[in-house]
Parts: sequence; C-alpha cells; structure tokens
Amino acid sequence: MGAESEGNAEYRLVSERDLRRVVKDIFVALGAPPADADVVAAVLVAADLRGIESHGVGRVRLYVKDIRNNVISPLTTITLVRESPTTAVLDGGNGLGQVTARRAMETAIEKARQAGCASVTVRGSNHFGIAGYYAMMALPHDMIGLALTNSSPVMVPTYARQAVLGSNPIALAVPAGQRRPYVLDMATTVAPLGKMEVYMRKELPIPLGWGVDREGQPTTDPAEAYWHGGLMPLGGPAMTSGYKGYGLSLGVDVFSAVLSGASFASQIIPWQNTRTEAANIGHFFSAWRIDSFMPPSEFKERMDELIHLMHEAPKVVGEERIYIPGEKEFELTERRQKEGIPVHLKVIENLSQIGDELGVDCGVLEP
Amino acid sequence: MGAESEGNAEYRLVSERDLRRVVKDIFVALGAPPADADVVAAVLVAADLRGIESHGVGRVRLYVKDIRNNVISPLTTITLVRESPTTAVLDGGNGLGQVTARRAMETAIEKARQAGCASVTVRGSNHFGIAGYYAMMALPHDMIGLALTNSSPVMVPTYARQAVLGSNPIALAVPAGQRRPYVLDMATTVAPLGKMEVYMRKELPIPLGWGVDREGQPTTDPAEAYWHGGLMPLGGPAMTSGYKGYGLSLGVDVFSAVLSGASFASQIIPWQNTRTEAANIGHFFSAWRIDSFMPPSEFKERMDELIHLMHEAPKVVGEERIYIPGEKEFELTERRQKEGIPVHLKVIENLSQIGDELGVDCGVLEP
Repeated sequence: MGAESEGNAEYRLVSERDLRRVVKDIFVALGAPPADADVVAAVLVAADLRGIESHGVGRVRLYVKDIRNNVISPLTTITLVRESPTTAVLDGGNGLGQVTARRAMETAIEKARQAGCASVTVRGSNHFGIAGYYAMMALPHDMIGLALTNSSPVMVPTYARQAVLGSNPIALAVPAGQRRPYVLDMATTVAPLGKMEVYMRKELPIPLGWGVDREGQPTTDPAEAYWHGGLMPLGGPAMTSGYKGYGLSLGVDVFSAVLSGASFASQIIPWQNTRTEAANIGHFFSAWRIDSFMPPSEFKERMDELIHLMHEAPKVVGEERIYIPGEKEFELTERRQKEGIPVHLKVIENLSQIGDELGVDCGVLEP
Repeated sequence: MGAESEGNAEYRLVSERDLRRVVKDIFVALGAPPADADVVAAVLVAADLRGIESHGVGRVRLYVKDIRNNVISPLTTITLVRESPTTAVLDGGNGLGQVTARRAMETAIEKARQAGCASVTVRGSNHFGIAGYYAMMALPHDMIGLALTNSSPVMVPTYARQAVLGSNPIALAVPAGQRRPYVLDMATTVAPLGKMEVYMRKELPIPLGWGVDREGQPTTDPAEAYWHGGLMPLGGPAMTSGYKGYGLSLGVDVFSAVLSGASFASQIIPWQNTRTEAANIGHFFSAWRIDSFMPPSEFKERMDELIHLMHEAPKVVGEERIYIPGEKEFELTERRQKEGIPVHLKVIENLSQIGDELGVDCGVLEP
C-alpha cells in the first residue's frame, strides 16, 4: 500500500497543502466555484495521503478532459428528487461527483441525527474518488458510515468473458475509542485496474487470480487483462468463491443505481474512452447513530476490545502485525502529512502542463 | 450447490412437509411452544431446500445437545432493550436463534414501513440457521432486506495463524419483476467448514485457497484446516486480497455484536465443543422500503434489466449460464418442493434416534 512510491526516484515529495492548492486552482480555472473545487481537491489528495494512488491527483487529467469536452459540468447543481425523514434521492446534475457525494453524505448524517438511521441514494453523478472519504464523514458524529458507488465496467462476472460490472467499492467507517477507527474501503474486484498498468510498465506478470483474458480464463498477462479481458471479482475463480465478489458488486449496483435511477453495469461507458455523454454514475450512503443502540462510550470500548483481539491473535512466523482495515492508511496519512506526499513525476509533469494551459501557478510542484 | 446429494445412494428423499413436521415435533418435545418450533423447522428445512445442507436439519442434533445441556433455552423470551422509530435492540434471552431473528426482522420491516428504513440489532441469541431466510422476509413487502450474524470462530485473519473470527455471513435480498429476486447469502470465508468435513470423508485434498494449517500457511489437507488451522477469508491469501474478506467479517461483527452487546470474535465458544454457558450470538437486520426511493414497479423493471445484462453477457466456452445470486437456490427449491429433499442417511438415523428418545414419530423418514 503506497510502498512502491517510498524513496523512489520516479516520485517527488509535495506537501499536502501545496498539492491541494494546485488541484483546487485547476478546478477553479475550469469553472468550478472555489468551495466545490476545494472539496474535489480534498478528496483527491486524501487518496494520495492514504496510499491509494490510483484514485489520487493522477486522475485530475481525466476530470479535465471530461470538463473540457462538456461531458462533466464544473457547476454542480444538485436536485432533491424525493425525500422522507430517513431517505433521500439526489440528482447530481452531471456535476462533480465529489461535491454531490459530500452533500449526499451530509444529508444522510443530518437525517440520521434526527431519525437514528438514514440512507441517501444519488443519480446523475460522476466518479467521486475514494468511497472511504464519505464513510469517514460519519466518524466525528459518533455514527457508523457506509458509502457505495458503481463505476465503469472492469469486472468479469463468474462464467463470463467480458467486463460488464464496475469495481463497485464498499466503504464502511466505524469509530473506536483509544484505537484508530475501523475504515474498510475495498473494491469488489481482487485488484484495481491501476495495478495492471503498474505491472505492464514494469513488464512483470500479474499473480494468477487477479485478471482474466479475452476467453474469460485466468491470465498472468497484465496487458491482456487490461485491454481484452478484465478483473476477477473478489474470491477469484468459482472454485474459490469468486461468485461472492461478483454478487457483492451486483449488490452495490442495486443500491447505487437501480434504486436511484442511475446507469448500471455495462450501461456505463468506460472512463478511459473519450465520452460524449454523461456517465450517470450512482452512489449510496447510509449513517447509523450509535447512541440509538448503545452509549457511544461503551460502543467505543467494545470496538477497542475487538481490535485488541485481532492485534493479539497468534501471527504467522515472519509477520509482526495483524492489521485492522484502515490502520495502514492512517499511519501512512500521518507520515505523509509530516514528510510530504510522493507524487509520480509523470503526474507532476501532467499537472504542470494543465496548469500552464489554464494559467495556474504550479511552481510548488517543481524541486 | 447441493449437487453432491442428487441421486446419491447415501441420501433418501423426504417431502418438505414431512421433514418440517418431524423437526417441529422434536422441538416441541424439547419444550418449545409449537409456533416457535414451527419457525425453527421452517428455517432449517429452507436451508435443505436451497441446497445449503450444512445449515439444514443435519444441525438438529447440535440444538438438541445444547437444549438438553441447558445451554440454549427452548423458551424464547425476547426483551426490547432500546428503541427509536428507526432502530431497536433486542435481547433473545438465550432462546432459539431462529425465533428471535424472525421477530427482529419483523420489527425492522414494521419500522421501515413507518419510517422508510430501519435497523434492528440483537444480542443474547444463538445460531439462527441461514441468514438468507430473514433477508428474504423483506421481499413480499417490496423492501430490500439485509441480515448479518456473527458465529463461532473458524476464520483465520490475514497474517494470523489461529481462527478468531466467525464465518460471519452477509445476506441481501432484493425484489425483481419478471425475474426471480436477487438473494445473496454468503459466508465471508472462501468455503464453509462443512466442506472440510465432506473432503475428509471422501479422503480428497481441498483446493488451495480454502484453508490454512496450524502455522497459518495455505494447506490442501482438510483435516489440518478443520482441526488445527482454519478457514481463509474470502479472497484467500493477502496477495489475492484476503484482507477484504477478513475486513468484511470484522464489519459483520461490528453490526451484529459490538453494536448490540453480544459476544464477538474469539469471545464466542466453538459450537462443536460441549458448551456450558450461553453463546450470546449477535445479529443485525435492516429493511429499506423501495417506494421511499422510487415506485416499486419501476424499480423492479430496472432490476430485471440488470439481471438481463448479466444473463446476456458473453460466456466462457463450455459455460451455458451466468447466474444471479440466489438463482440456483430458487431452482433447486422448486425442484425439491416437487420431488422431495435429499436427506443424508446419517442425518435420518440421527433424527430417528432423537425421535425415539423424545417419543416423536419419525416413521415418515423411513422408506
């Protein structure tokens, strides 16, 4: 997790503050209101802080392309389609996914504050970055947060030979007491598409179980999986229960898209392609107020105990730690907030070029 | 899925009605009220109908043992610990898990009917059979249903060498229109413990990726995984993202047990052991009223379209169908309701013996 970028000559350290400023300015120059641009920058940089480079500032170029092609609107006009005391349906108006997602999770939290638990579904949105960002918004409110989103097809279902489902991530955030919160943020594929690119660049075979070829058979060739086959669902082939990961991915599409009116499965156009129409991505958010069930102080002590039981379990020889979901990412974030965020030189070059074109000062990215 | 029992000389066909009657009578003889015994029988037989033999009537002997040892009470006294318009905490009073779980899901459905969505968490319960049974209770109400439960430790977390988490299943049921509903009902382990027993009996190696040995290393020896190691989380080893299945399992423990006051993780005593104290198992149930988000007729058409996209995806050569979660189980149920349920001769022998001891007529199980 992020280890590849540590002390690597292909990366340059940039401070969180500088990186956020550059990304924000780029989105402002593209026509986004400063407050919205700030949200987009915060979510993208949060991914880099947490070591999820595939969803970080390296994606700015994709947003820029789509905004320039009038496929994403830099002005995010959110409509409330339907509402009850515990539910809402929002339409993101084909604006910035991060802005709509943030508003939707705020709505879920506010409704849960009044009602105990609440769920908000979203249509008419775009790729929103890391799902974990929105689930974690529940933490300071002593709530449990859930965030789901569908995405462009990359997953090949069990017995299929074509990618027809997204990597459809599931993010769940739960507060703890003395320990760091539990934050699960997982694609329902075994590996992310970005890993295929890394292995292609390094000319290394991928581990068996990550991807399939154009015939739907397991492959170790990252280019074949990337260009012609697709990614395996969590669990791998049927023999090791890959149909469970496929089933989870379908479930994410149900909550995010079937329920909201968004596009789903192969209806979504691959992001890598030059699109001419709106993606109509869907999201889903839930929040549970812990004190509806138990005093939060007691709950947090119990979470600490659960985490303790995992940490103290007997370990495989050679392994020093058993991790809780999110633990590595919190540690990485703390280090990168102090030492800076490693940004790939190609990404820096790309941001600088975009900055030049838009009149945004990217001097802080240079050594 | 259930295929091993088809046309197998070690199995005898018993009608659904007869099997339910025998199981019900056994629980009545043990002291359960007839209505409660009927719920237990319905849930156990539903597992056999759906081909989930590991959770079917073969488990009756375990309940009988625990009731006789005064470890489970046949009288299920459910207490409402805490309540809001959208949430509830129930204590199952160490009674029959199926009875408490059914009441809890009914509570979630009734609250969702009033409020839009609702969640109910349960402590002081016991093993409740298949999670899918309770999630599916939402379907006739045009709701989406979710059911989670924790269970005795069988899963070895990533980098550990001891089973400290349950198979902690996730069940999700979603209504469709012309198509059968989507019903995901999955353990968060790769394979169930029952499969280790099957492979031990047949003296066959298990596929690599199902279990680990006492050192926490992948093994193909089912006895080693069963007796000394444990089951791998969905995803297998870390290289194929087993930490995701481990993370999901932990999440199930959070909702089912940390939030309810139940025991969790290695606090739960293995069911196979002779227990002397209550298991204090926890469950979690949620229901979402579809018309809070979208007219149910429109939602169901959209579900049909999602299912259609999966069915019509290009297939691997040699495979004729791509399945939706629950589809195989619905087809099997329909066939077994007509032709009878294959029950293993050992299970029949066991039920007959219990029947003899309790004065329950098990003649219908004989040829």
